Amino acid sequence: MIRGTVVGQVWATRKARGLEGRKLLLVAARDADGGPTGRLVVAIDVLDAGVGEDVTVAFGSGARNVLRPGPENRDLLCDAAIAVIVEGAG
Amino acid sequence: MIRGTVVGQVWATRKARGLEGRKLLLVAARDADGGPTGRLVVAIDVLDAGVGEDVTVAFGSGARNVLRPGPENRDLLCDAAIAVIVEGAG
Amino acid sequence: MIRGTVVGQVWATRKARGLEGRKLLLVAARDADGGPTGRLVVAIDVLDAGVGEDVTVAFGSGARNVLRPGPENRDLLCDAAIAVIVEGAG
Amino acid sequence: MIRGTVVGQVWATRKARGLEGRKLLLVAARDADGGPTGRLVVAIDVLDAGVGEDVTVAFGSGARNVLRPGPENRDLLCDAAIAVIVEGAG
Amino acid sequence: MIRGTVVGQVWATRKARGLEGRKLLLVAARDADGGPTGRLVVAIDVLDAGVGEDVTVAFGSGARNVLRPGPENRDLLCDAAIAVIVEGAG
Repeated sequence: MIRGTVVGQVWATRKARGLEGRKLLLVAARDADGGPTGRLVVAIDVLDAGVGEDVTVAFGSGARNVLRPGPENRDLLCDAAIAVIVEGAG
Repeated sequence: MIRGTVVGQVWATRKARGLEGRKLLLVAARDADGGPTGRLVVAIDVLDAGVGEDVTVAFGSGARNVLRPGPENRDLLCDAAIAVIVEGAG
Repeated sequence: MIRGTVVGQVWATRKARGLEGRKLLLVAARDADGGPTGRLVVAIDVLDAGVGEDVTVAFGSGARNVLRPGPENRDLLCDAAIAVIVEGAG
Repeated sequence: MIRGTVVGQVWATRKARGLEGRKLLLVAARDADGGPTGRLVVAIDVLDAGVGEDVTVAFGSGARNVLRPGPENRDLLCDAAIAVIVEGAG
Repeated sequence: MIRGTVVGQVWATRKARGLEGRKLLLVAARDADGGPTGRLVVAIDVLDAGVGEDVTVAFGSGARNVLRPGPENRDLLCDAAIAVIVEGAG
């Protein structure tokens, strides 16, 4: 996973089948010092995260498992998903 | 997924089996501030995206699922695909 | 795998199913000279690593196999896991 | 996929089983402006690409599918393969 | 695959099940000009590579296939493996 900050949401009507009704968040990745790296990730959110919140994003099969536990989830169009809303770190 | 801007299309006659008839777009990745990162991705497009459009690109099984829902899609030669044509963000 | 240093732990109550009871560590990646790269990874830990320890982090199916050997582990929400606590290198 | 330029070939006698007879090319990745990024990828080639040619490289299951269509190709030792020899872009 | 130079070996007693008896090498990635990128990878070695040798490293299923051909290798804790010991390039 990476750690990042939610910076916005994506709006779209033309999108691939499998993304209908999915909430897509823009997440700005954080570096080891907690600052922004500049890297932007677009992640599916089922945890109801809001702008400004500190989150972790999972990729690959980890991301699909956020939406529905595998192995019967290979049909999910999801390569990145919000996995944790961070309350504290240290 | 990453977010990027379509900057062109690739033309080729010598290509691997499985790419016949596929439209391949060049996408310049965007950073957390919306600017270009310099990173270039070549993605399959089935959403009819055009040059200059703001898109997201999915990777891995997410990309294959853009073309055909899994799990019976492991024969697809696709590691990156246009998943969303972005209309707005914020 | 990458090599890094454990720099902290993540605390959360809102998290995806499958992460209950999991210990999530923040790992700062190290470069070829042993210094910090700035890259931050969030990894599941089952080896009881502590802050300041030198570790390696595995990704993808390698990470799932740290938690439970495959192939029957595709339900694990894990894309990064502590694989080794490094005692020496050279 | 990424886009890059073939800059050479790798020669070796000690290599893993599954790479016998495989042609391994060195590809220098190109950025969004067409210039070199400095990143180097080693990719299997079955399209007979030559030094100086403009190519795309596929990764993961996409790369395995360049060699043999899936899903029965998980035995292939291939994480990167030349997918397209680019004739034009724009 | 990436190309790199073996710069050392990792020693550990506390490690995940599946890594017992595995030789873990530190590999410094090389860029398109042959120089160091600074990136460090930790890879399993079954080719008996030594410090200073020029190698390629495979990732994902490619890495698992270096150890044992798939598809029955998903239990292997291996996300990176030495695939080739490079003798020459050009």
